[in-house]
Amino acid sequence: MPQGKPAVVPDDGLTTRQRRNRPLLLVHTGPGKGKSTAAFGLALRAWNQGWPIGVFQFVKSAKWKVGEERALRILGASGEGGTVVWNKMGEGWSWVQRDLADSEEAAREGWEQVKRDIAAETYRLLVLDEFAYPMHWGWVPTEEVVHVLRDRPGTQHVVITGRNAPRELLDAADLVTEMTKVKHPMDTGQKGQRGIEW
Amino acid sequence: MPQGKPAVVPDDGLTTRQRRNRPLLLVHTGPGKGKSTAAFGLALRAWNQGWPIGVFQFVKSAKWKVGEERALRILGASGEGGTVVWNKMGEGWSWVQRDLADSEEAAREGWEQVKRDIAAETYRLLVLDEFAYPMHWGWVPTEEVVHVLRDRPGTQHVVITGRNAPRELLDAADLVTEMTKVKHPMDTGQKGQRGIEW
Repeated sequence: MPQGKPAVVPDDGLTTRQRRNRPLLLVHTGPGKGKSTAAFGLALRAWNQGWPIGVFQFVKSAKWKVGEERALRILGASGEGGTVVWNKMGEGWSWVQRDLADSEEAAREGWEQVKRDIAAETYRLLVLDEFAYPMHWGWVPTEEVVHVLRDRPGTQHVVITGRNAPRELLDAADLVTEMTKVKHPMDTGQKGQRGIEW
Repeated sequence: MPQGKPAVVPDDGLTTRQRRNRPLLLVHTGPGKGKSTAAFGLALRAWNQGWPIGVFQFVKSAKWKVGEERALRILGASGEGGTVVWNKMGEGWSWVQRDLADSEEAAREGWEQVKRDIAAETYRLLVLDEFAYPMHWGWVPTEEVVHVLRDRPGTQHVVITGRNAPRELLDAADLVTEMTKVKHPMDTGQKGQRGIEW
């Protein structure tokens, strides 16, 4: 576990306080489990700090992550910590009134809203869950994502999850964790089960 | 993201339902971030299923993971999902009345309680946070841990986190994820910050 001691003290002209509060871009990638669960675990910390949290789920399936969604919605409404807005591509996004042609268009609409929210500084933590996929597939231009995130105003932490995060995104990130699959029960015929996979 | 399709169907004489509900031993190890956050993210899923959850934090520091603790305590008390019991070594464990000589003794006392709770089937998910360390340091015998976990009764899922999980534990686990550090802000002088590290 980290002890808060940096390996080097950079010569960047920032005070320790300024450096400490620098907004971070975090990426959870790799083929192993835990990319999204760790992002939602991080959201618990942000919630505890009283921060407004915006979740954008760039997945079609409604089955996965219902536990995290319900827990964070209840926490967000509890008045004890930060607020939580949960946006789902799988339900066509709440702000889109018309039918979306396909996943590609839906992913683009999601990214357009993320851009608006970043410009407006709506949230202090943005969870862009499974957002590595639309970048990997070329649906959303990685170059633009990197540009928007690099120039984002204020103190907005962003965590992006997904298996094949593009190299340019990793280069721009402050923290990258790769989840490596060492052993998985599906390898030996185990099916996904409630409470574990969703 | 897993689609619930196993790579092979095993010839183990179990029905799909039996196999689906098989209790799992999960290990999150490696030098990267996200081991504990992913475990607590998993606890959100268990909570959503209405399961009783027992957390055992095998760490001394009280500073880390306060967000997860507060969130899960509020969820556990909400009446909306499962219950949560949160046990902390850093505060001397609630069930130990005397002073504990050192971390080694404290870790042993923690494991003794875990054994009692496993025998009594107190929880349906046990989060043994940072428990790889006392095994790695030889404070708690890995062989005994593996034996107790292998023979645990009923349907008790167990997730163990910590950097240097012993080989015997990985061999006994159903799911092992290694969190690999690709890039960390502390490498470039960033100190730990609120909402991210705790």
